[in-house]
Amino acid sequence: MNVMIGRFILISLIAFVLPSEVASQLDIMPFPQSVKHGEGYFMIKDDFNVSLEGPGSHRLDAYVQSFKYRLGAMTGARILWQTLNKDKAAHLTITYGETADLNPAVDESYKIVVTRDKGISLTSRTDIGALRGLETLLQMVIIKDNKYVIQEAEIQDYPRFEWRGLLVDVCRHFIPIDVMKRIVQGMAAVKMNVLHWHLTEDQGFRVESKAFPRLHEKGSDGQYYTQEEVVSFIKFADSYGIRVMPEFDLPGHATSWLVAYPELGAGPPPQGLERYFGVFNPTFDPTQDEVYEFLDGFLGEMSALFKDEFIHIGGDENNGIDWDNNEDIQVFMRDNNIPDNHALQAYFNNRVYDILTRYGKRMIGWDEIMQSGLNKDIVIHAWRGKEKLVEAAQSGYQTILSNGYYIDLSQTAAFHYQNDPVTDDMPLTGEQLELIKGGEATMWSELVSKENIETRIWPRTAAIAERLWSDASVNDVDDMYRRLVYVSAHLEKAGSKHLKNRQALIRQLSERTMSHHLEYFLDWFQPLEGYARHGQKPRYTSYTPLTRSVDATNPDALNLWYMKAAILSGLNKGEWQLLELEVARLKAFLAESDSFKTMIAQNPKLSEIEELHKGFMSQSVEMLSLFSKLQEHEEPEDYIAYLKDRMGALEELSAAEIFLTYRNLIEWLIITMG
Amino acid sequence: MNVMIGRFILISLIAFVLPSEVASQLDIMPFPQSVKHGEGYFMIKDDFNVSLEGPGSHRLDAYVQSFKYRLGAMTGARILWQTLNKDKAAHLTITYGETADLNPAVDESYKIVVTRDKGISLTSRTDIGALRGLETLLQMVIIKDNKYVIQEAEIQDYPRFEWRGLLVDVCRHFIPIDVMKRIVQGMAAVKMNVLHWHLTEDQGFRVESKAFPRLHEKGSDGQYYTQEEVVSFIKFADSYGIRVMPEFDLPGHATSWLVAYPELGAGPPPQGLERYFGVFNPTFDPTQDEVYEFLDGFLGEMSALFKDEFIHIGGDENNGIDWDNNEDIQVFMRDNNIPDNHALQAYFNNRVYDILTRYGKRMIGWDEIMQSGLNKDIVIHAWRGKEKLVEAAQSGYQTILSNGYYIDLSQTAAFHYQNDPVTDDMPLTGEQLELIKGGEATMWSELVSKENIETRIWPRTAAIAERLWSDASVNDVDDMYRRLVYVSAHLEKAGSKHLKNRQALIRQLSERTMSHHLEYFLDWFQPLEGYARHGQKPRYTSYTPLTRSVDATNPDALNLWYMKAAILSGLNKGEWQLLELEVARLKAFLAESDSFKTMIAQNPKLSEIEELHKGFMSQSVEMLSLFSKLQEHEEPEDYIAYLKDRMGALEELSAAEIFLTYRNLIEWLIITMG
Repeated sequence: MNVMIGRFILISLIAFVLPSEVASQLDIMPFPQSVKHGEGYFMIKDDFNVSLEGPGSHRLDAYVQSFKYRLGAMTGARILWQTLNKDKAAHLTITYGETADLNPAVDESYKIVVTRDKGISLTSRTDIGALRGLETLLQMVIIKDNKYVIQEAEIQDYPRFEWRGLLVDVCRHFIPIDVMKRIVQGMAAVKMNVLHWHLTEDQGFRVESKAFPRLHEKGSDGQYYTQEEVVSFIKFADSYGIRVMPEFDLPGHATSWLVAYPELGAGPPPQGLERYFGVFNPTFDPTQDEVYEFLDGFLGEMSALFKDEFIHIGGDENNGIDWDNNEDIQVFMRDNNIPDNHALQAYFNNRVYDILTRYGKRMIGWDEIMQSGLNKDIVIHAWRGKEKLVEAAQSGYQTILSNGYYIDLSQTAAFHYQNDPVTDDMPLTGEQLELIKGGEATMWSELVSKENIETRIWPRTAAIAERLWSDASVNDVDDMYRRLVYVSAHLEKAGSKHLKNRQALIRQLSERTMSHHLEYFLDWFQPLEGYARHGQKPRYTSYTPLTRSVDATNPDALNLWYMKAAILSGLNKGEWQLLELEVARLKAFLAESDSFKTMIAQNPKLSEIEELHKGFMSQSVEMLSLFSKLQEHEEPEDYIAYLKDRMGALEELSAAEIFLTYRNLIEWLIITMG
Repeated sequence: MNVMIGRFILISLIAFVLPSEVASQLDIMPFPQSVKHGEGYFMIKDDFNVSLEGPGSHRLDAYVQSFKYRLGAMTGARILWQTLNKDKAAHLTITYGETADLNPAVDESYKIVVTRDKGISLTSRTDIGALRGLETLLQMVIIKDNKYVIQEAEIQDYPRFEWRGLLVDVCRHFIPIDVMKRIVQGMAAVKMNVLHWHLTEDQGFRVESKAFPRLHEKGSDGQYYTQEEVVSFIKFADSYGIRVMPEFDLPGHATSWLVAYPELGAGPPPQGLERYFGVFNPTFDPTQDEVYEFLDGFLGEMSALFKDEFIHIGGDENNGIDWDNNEDIQVFMRDNNIPDNHALQAYFNNRVYDILTRYGKRMIGWDEIMQSGLNKDIVIHAWRGKEKLVEAAQSGYQTILSNGYYIDLSQTAAFHYQNDPVTDDMPLTGEQLELIKGGEATMWSELVSKENIETRIWPRTAAIAERLWSDASVNDVDDMYRRLVYVSAHLEKAGSKHLKNRQALIRQLSERTMSHHLEYFLDWFQPLEGYARHGQKPRYTSYTPLTRSVDATNPDALNLWYMKAAILSGLNKGEWQLLELEVARLKAFLAESDSFKTMIAQNPKLSEIEELHKGFMSQSVEMLSLFSKLQEHEEPEDYIAYLKDRMGALEELSAAEIFLTYRNLIEWLIITMG
């Protein structure tokens, strides 16, 4: 068997060669709250049809059409477009009680019953619940006996948290509206429900203002959303049952505003849009009445444009320098008994709060805005630490968590997955726990562009989606990684280009030479974590191309996942074929090493990985001896000593902002076998 | 060397290991009118900057930004966003004379001079010419000595024909606006300049009408472009220097109009939108004044919406049945001395002509509209045969060619490439020849959907783009195929998803199992040509999924191209390594045949290729003996006999609407060696 492909066969065996084994296993993410399996299978045929019964929902009507299209594409079934009325016999009967308005409290529960002979019923209180159920149903389609089927089951499902968001920063790099729409499709595929649109920053002001057109004209390099696009996007997201919450970051992170209106700033006029990344001085002057007049006009306009009940006012990382240096502001603070910058920001927030309230909006902001005296109907967005979430709940604020969900930091899916918003050790009453409404993954865009943002978000954000939807007890990391392979395919079918865009980048990087080899090689590496990449020289700017090797590596090195799965299969079931295949793949790559070395040496963009390749070659020799030792079933105790020894011998191989993941593999083995 | 990748290395050698060999060879498509090479190379560095001098052009300002972004992505250079004024020293100096209005006569010429030390100058009469030159420049970037460089050169370029179009049928399958935009990006990358938007058909009415909203409401299943989208699309295409010409097909192909307004039809009201493909009866009644009142209102609205000077009125395939069966129409014809349906359609066309003229539009239609008495300022779109083109020119009409450019028919790029609009044997005067204005590739969409339309258009339509732009003497088929590999990468970098979407389809088809093997296998096959796929059972409908093996095969089987290139390299240069690599790849595939067989047998969508795989296995054994014979350099005469013998023995292997291309390879060899 060819080693390059055997792995895929064996991994796929789980899905379609050994159906008896998956009888009790659904490859769905987020995993439903309750699943009971039956013995039989419902078969998808060409005459598959759908009936729909409810008060009428444009949202659901369109989703059902799209469901049929996707099911047809998957299975090849020629499914008629017509949707039947409930009274006609249908293979899938959808019944929903009401057409929901999108808000945080909307009921998203649904129930699915699959029977071999009577087909499938999907029932829900709202049309949104039905959308969620349709995504589950598509993930239930498997192959059995050379047919596409759905196993008999009864599923009851509902979200654990009502707020399951994704922040997309469209400022550090502009993300065009078609990419935003695909991100929404991905979110819906994994049952997320809030798109947090980070629209203003030092590096760009990304929304058209008709009241203050200088904002987008001066602040965006021409890269902004027109109001037409915004309206169309909100409608699009609504059709997927996803709220769109805008953020206008105030009073700091304000360079792009102050390029247009320098007179509203506390410090010197900005020289232009910020091209670097970090925390910068330009900040609104909270002592000027003109600032509030301006914000009243602007937020009034935006309140009409964005229909969601929340507006996010940011409020983070105001460094206070321009306030400290402004004599008028210092006088104002003395005159008004404002003791420090935090209190001054509180004063500012209260005035913004009044504006938003007048426009019928609820305010949410980063945890810096938390202060005594602020109205309890605001929501605190905890990012600096989970203790901020606890503090907010203790103070009586509704709160959501992003700390631990910063997907820009290249941490693993496992890390995010294990970050539960609610843990047993939290010193909170039952009532306070109720104030924790969910969380948001944050895709800050210093190091992502329109080409690679989907690859950075998916599939791993599905692990966060599961954390926020499924029961806390659904927390097996290995099983999460196993299902991530399936959810990745599900996401692609839903419209996401995360796989396509990565392959295109690798084609471009490799100049189409040995692309598959470059992909295999990079799948052993992960990008530097945290903010480490920002410490490199030359510093990243908003015009640095993001088309290097590091941009094609995954925060979850795929070969690491696969190797772990192969080893687990051996350790748990005594089945070592997967490991044999992985080893054979590695050997096959090593055998081509000279060609690969020649190729990268000739490629200007790949020269930077020459050293890594050399190191990979030598370290792989050690790893091969480790794998053969594993297969020899040594005594665990000897084994641990051996592993610890290897770990010492294996230095951390790192360059070009990426690192080899062999050490992670050994660390994991020590834990797994220890 | 690994056989799976060696091919890519060797092919790439042409580009970056043997630069001396490419000194006189540019991998550009369409090939410029005049090229002189120098010896040196200009190096792309981080400080690369651009100056722009001209009367001001939003089009070019944006294109230069995009040029810098693309060049940065390709080379990794951190190119500053600022564009300099002409007086500053720049690496690329762009100078243009005027900002053009988009129309057929626009000047698209440009001149590029590249010098090692003084950088690059790009000069043009219009901003559009500069856009065309920037695409050439991006294709000139190569790797030399581990650096991205552009070879010294002087290029003078201009189009042979002013009309280089692509028709996109968005009716049989709806093509969303984001896909349309990517198609425009691809067109610009190969210097095409007319997007012919086929907006109405029996199967769908795809544009919003505010005057007659029932048209899109009843006629589109909700799949239509809003007028906002149309305006935004025209603006987008304009920014690429591409005209958008709408087609409203009249009086036949009219089911979707008559679903909304049955009283305007000549026959019985349609039962609903047409779901099948072909020629159908519903046709406007040309004898009713109400029809012209309606068309006046509708075409008036569309004349304001679409700013191009042309409106295409279709006019094709009116079968006349509903006219023959309508007693009132028969009376009208007798009363007005209209002898036959062709004359009746002429009467209709003249009245439509009057309407369009009143709205300041020029009329163009399919060649059926040609008739004596029609005004000479209309343009005839020849599709039924090249003789229609000749007839039109002889009759004094301007004319464009689509016959031979029907890219929906799965003919090879070579076929289209060899189809010149002007040939020596045409019985035309010099003045008549001047009436031939160019041509259009036609992407009819019976068998393409939003997922695979780009894969069906690119890269092969680049061969048509070259036919219409470059000199007639640029006609070497092998060299065209060689360059198609590069232009495919260029198209991807310009935004097209033709490669990405095909790979996604193969991932889905294979359920991610042995995807690379499935890709290799399918690359030996081509789809059935012409209308053969429409003869299959069950008949194709607008809801048939286009996700079968045939949808992932290319009209130019890639392995056929590669094998031909490998054999040519041996025959012409005595270098047989490429052939060795291709043979090794084939053997490697054959060695995995059992695994592959098992995989496809378990996959419901791949069962239909089981027989093909079996046949491929056995025929490949014969082909392997052929390849080894080739490498042994037999005498050509013996060889031809052997080839003819093989050809007889190799039956045409065809199933699942695709056929194996081994016979083409042998036919080609007989011609090449004969």
